Amino acid sequence: MTPNAPLQHITLIGVGLIGGSFVLDLKRLGRVQTVTGIDLDRDNLDRALERRVIDKAFTEINAESIGHADLVLIATPVSTLPTICQAIAPLLAPEAYVSDVGSTKRTAIAAFRQYLPERISHCIAAHPIAGSDRSGALAAQFGLYQDKKLIITTHGQERPEGIALIKSLWQAVGAQTFEMSAEEHDAVFAAVSHMPHLTAFAYVHQIADHPDGQEYLKFAASGFRDFTRIASSHPAIWTDICLDNKNSLIKLIAGLHDQLSKLERILEQENRDALYRYFEEAKQTRDEWLGSQ
Amino acid sequence: MTPNAPLQHITLIGVGLIGGSFVLDLKRLGRVQTVTGIDLDRDNLDRALERRVIDKAFTEINAESIGHADLVLIATPVSTLPTICQAIAPLLAPEAYVSDVGSTKRTAIAAFRQYLPERISHCIAAHPIAGSDRSGALAAQFGLYQDKKLIITTHGQERPEGIALIKSLWQAVGAQTFEMSAEEHDAVFAAVSHMPHLTAFAYVHQIADHPDGQEYLKFAASGFRDFTRIASSHPAIWTDICLDNKNSLIKLIAGLHDQLSKLERILEQENRDALYRYFEEAKQTRDEWLGSQ
Repeated sequence: MTPNAPLQHITLIGVGLIGGSFVLDLKRLGRVQTVTGIDLDRDNLDRALERRVIDKAFTEINAESIGHADLVLIATPVSTLPTICQAIAPLLAPEAYVSDVGSTKRTAIAAFRQYLPERISHCIAAHPIAGSDRSGALAAQFGLYQDKKLIITTHGQERPEGIALIKSLWQAVGAQTFEMSAEEHDAVFAAVSHMPHLTAFAYVHQIADHPDGQEYLKFAASGFRDFTRIASSHPAIWTDICLDNKNSLIKLIAGLHDQLSKLERILEQENRDALYRYFEEAKQTRDEWLGSQ
Repeated sequence: MTPNAPLQHITLIGVGLIGGSFVLDLKRLGRVQTVTGIDLDRDNLDRALERRVIDKAFTEINAESIGHADLVLIATPVSTLPTICQAIAPLLAPEAYVSDVGSTKRTAIAAFRQYLPERISHCIAAHPIAGSDRSGALAAQFGLYQDKKLIITTHGQERPEGIALIKSLWQAVGAQTFEMSAEEHDAVFAAVSHMPHLTAFAYVHQIADHPDGQEYLKFAASGFRDFTRIASSHPAIWTDICLDNKNSLIKLIAGLHDQLSKLERILEQENRDALYRYFEEAKQTRDEWLGSQ
């Protein structure tokens, strides 16, 4: 299989925003002929068939849904990876590749090593940096990955052809590809993605717990809307991600406690200069980041 | 002056996004004939003149810039209100109204009471719930207040005609008007606006302080972008707001510490059900809010 040749068959396990958007674009580009979708939710599968995100639908992993695939793409919440790897292991075609899209990578690689040890050269751990607070097959969209990043976290035993194939597919749908270790990946995304989600959930929970919270919310506006957008994210996916990356997150929570305590002291002392500097430094960091995008 | 009659002359002190967008719409609607802008920043005034946000420009408060105004609208950072009220007091035309747009209202009313005691019946404290991380005259735009909220925080001594005038002007530019006490206002906005800003600044500062922060930021994506948008807000404006509302904020910081500590315990215990419930409750609160918008 050369990296740019069309695939005969992809089986997508978990037909939602992330996997659905990927195969929509691959089909449009002629990079895959047939996509089989596996999902526990029959309604979701029906919507995916109607919208031609997938061509065939199964509610379970079996010889028919897995055995024809050149690539099995697992796009389900991270905690399901071990069970799914175990289930597909005896069903995979001899040269089939297995890849995933999970937001934490150490456990993905651990699942590959534990349940697909004889296939490890065909297991490629990948993470597309795109998402939305929307989920499910209806959220799947063309162009989701245009100019987004895709990170492959290598475990060292991959066939080069496998890495080339996965890179080529993601590049075809518009992504820029990177490689890093799973450890580095998980530290980076704890900081720039998982911690913002956790903090947004925490802040919204604080309003929800406040006796006047519902009254207050009547006056929430665009600042609130954007700051809390990620608190509308899928609870099951984020439960998995946060548990999976808990050590990094516990350290980051401690860091945020420190920042908040510093602000508390500045406010108590009414230290105008220090507060201005604090805000200005944050603004500068954020503006520079935005300028680099 | 009947509430819907065009005003001859508005003097806008602080020609930025908030005040500039307001007078742009009022001029377009024929609700004001002439707008004088006062701003410390000459370049900003020139841009405002070029874009016809204002008709006349002054870099200082004096008889010429203030004396013709039917309405003086103060749209500068909250901490400048006392000085500005003191400066305009001897210059105001006999029946001129004074209003503001500040995000905290107890100190606005205190400034009116202290420096404009004989004018207090003509002082109307107001807060349009709209904004942006952008600032300055160039950020001024038509339609900023369409379907936004405008809150008048009454101090009890306003002439009814004054309240009617200010309401009518904001309604003309598309806002829905509300009345509440300054105390209630400041508690509401501490919760739904000031605390998100403070938290966004704190989170970005944590990344900025991290030795690998710059490397991490290369992989920040749309979740980060939206969550931190308000950390690009104007540091001077937000220094004033947070100091002004510090007592409410210190309480809210304590509340966020509690939420974060709760999450820390849940993560340490790997309590999947509790974490899922926590996220789900926050999502539900946020989704219901979004649905009500």
